[in-house]
Amino acid sequence: MTTMNRRIVLASRPQAIAGPENFRLETVPVPTPAVGEVLIRNHWLSLDPYMRGRMSAIKSYADPHPVDAVMLGGTVGVVAASANDQFAVGDTVLAFGGWQEYALIAGDGLRMVHRIDPALAPMQRYLGALGMPGMTAWFGLNRIIEPKAGETVVVSAASGAVGSVVGQLAKAAGCRVVGIAGGPDKCAYVVEELGFDACLDHKALRDTRDFDKALAAAAPQGVDGCFENVGGMVFEGTLRQMNAFGRIALCGMIAGYNGEPVPLKDPTVLLRSRLKVQGFIISEKPAEMAEAFRALAAAHVAGQLKYRESIAEGIAAAPDAFFGLLQGRNFGKQLVHLA
Amino acid sequence: MTTMNRRIVLASRPQAIAGPENFRLETVPVPTPAVGEVLIRNHWLSLDPYMRGRMSAIKSYADPHPVDAVMLGGTVGVVAASANDQFAVGDTVLAFGGWQEYALIAGDGLRMVHRIDPALAPMQRYLGALGMPGMTAWFGLNRIIEPKAGETVVVSAASGAVGSVVGQLAKAAGCRVVGIAGGPDKCAYVVEELGFDACLDHKALRDTRDFDKALAAAAPQGVDGCFENVGGMVFEGTLRQMNAFGRIALCGMIAGYNGEPVPLKDPTVLLRSRLKVQGFIISEKPAEMAEAFRALAAAHVAGQLKYRESIAEGIAAAPDAFFGLLQGRNFGKQLVHLA
Repeated sequence: MTTMNRRIVLASRPQAIAGPENFRLETVPVPTPAVGEVLIRNHWLSLDPYMRGRMSAIKSYADPHPVDAVMLGGTVGVVAASANDQFAVGDTVLAFGGWQEYALIAGDGLRMVHRIDPALAPMQRYLGALGMPGMTAWFGLNRIIEPKAGETVVVSAASGAVGSVVGQLAKAAGCRVVGIAGGPDKCAYVVEELGFDACLDHKALRDTRDFDKALAAAAPQGVDGCFENVGGMVFEGTLRQMNAFGRIALCGMIAGYNGEPVPLKDPTVLLRSRLKVQGFIISEKPAEMAEAFRALAAAHVAGQLKYRESIAEGIAAAPDAFFGLLQGRNFGKQLVHLA
Repeated sequence: MTTMNRRIVLASRPQAIAGPENFRLETVPVPTPAVGEVLIRNHWLSLDPYMRGRMSAIKSYADPHPVDAVMLGGTVGVVAASANDQFAVGDTVLAFGGWQEYALIAGDGLRMVHRIDPALAPMQRYLGALGMPGMTAWFGLNRIIEPKAGETVVVSAASGAVGSVVGQLAKAAGCRVVGIAGGPDKCAYVVEELGFDACLDHKALRDTRDFDKALAAAAPQGVDGCFENVGGMVFEGTLRQMNAFGRIALCGMIAGYNGEPVPLKDPTVLLRSRLKVQGFIISEKPAEMAEAFRALAAAHVAGQLKYRESIAEGIAAAPDAFFGLLQGRNFGKQLVHLA
């Protein structure tokens, strides 16, 4: 009996708002590895905001994802068959296996396959606090914001996979940390579980004046560092309260991912307050990734890296979970459990 | 007979567009220095875009200028009377003497008085290529853009006091340099006299598509560094053509100095292209100012620092010259000749 692979492909590019019609579930036979190739049974798929960017044909740091190809995504899983002597059946591996149950990895894709240690942490943690999101948090905080003890750092999407790590690392560095999250449950979690000093619920703030007052109360000494995952009103409001020589690590601008314009109304604040804004992509920083992983693994072993996951069950649930992520319905790292 | 001092004070804050009604010419007796004070006969006054910001009550890196006080400004002149043993009558000095013929300098203001060498260059050059504008150019280029030979650098307000130095230093560093200036005369000067590789006349470009095409032709390898003196459409258009990891030294956003909002329509470009934007004020970098001055003086002595001045005659002409500067009517460093 042939084993079947269920997978989700990009069916079409979104015109404006992405929806289920842009995806298609397919069922195809599981392939057999040719010489040099590896077949991985994906156990966990990571869903991330950057995927929305790839669905469109807009020029960015990566090429648009091809229509009719399996949606891309980071995965962890177990080698099911191998024709490559670097990998043995049973190895637990991190890979870019995509939105599917089985991934055949060949050629250049093999450079993205890394054995991981399932004894250090549950394997899905390598898609979160010990993976790209955690390393993204570490790099933006330590290489762009460079926080000093006593400074104030603001983190948007504070309960998410990246933001939660940023805040915990900034607290460990002696900073006052203010999170921004959507809803009272997330804010309570950010303060009570993760140990942030304060958290603003942006859903409870109706306009920029509300936001300004709330942030001024939460950051009475002004803001020195901003780890920006969202963009839009929250970003602009944070810029207005930054102290001279503030640093902004620009990691995500999810507010604009559906193509709606989210202008920065007053860019002169960058000059008035002599701010530094720097965009970055962790995968372009291989040297720092290794350093970041060591720091995160040490924090994890010491029990200093708290963590929360939103889990969707089965590959067919991936599109809905992805739209939930774009709308902030997830709570913590959004994963799809596949096996 | 009492010698009189003609001076210009800030009469009122601009409601929207600044105009002559915001200034008032006064004639008052020249004061006599008390113990520790110095009286300077101002020979040259520098006019600079930052002064527009101080006229308003908007929070910025400096306090608003007080109404009824003499307008602030950098000056060079000669000590006319001294009750301070650090300065002798006849010394040529750089000071913050303001919009007036004579400046009595006391207290903290004395820390801004520096003897200069009139044998190295005409004294007004210390308000331009060998002064704050030149040091601003040096810092933004060398400490923020950090250009490598072969890279492309775009400079706005390219014929001005800052932009002209940026471009000449970037050429000396082996870069392709594209200026942006207003009008064919300025563009011809930038290319033919200053040695830039190309110059876009923003007055001849009707919209963003025109600008995009012109910049793509002038910078076929994309843009690696941007020295921004203007803001607005030109800035946004340059950002769109920046290469990954481009650096932007944010020195001025004159487009917004009259308070009109000049939004950055698409800030996600900072993330997509992993750009670094950094605002700065040279007067906050005393250590680098000394290094910058040495580099600029060496370039001047070697004849490598070409230079152009717009000169208004007499203190009464300062307001009109200042509005001309805000509108780009000046051609090179805007000075007022006082003696």
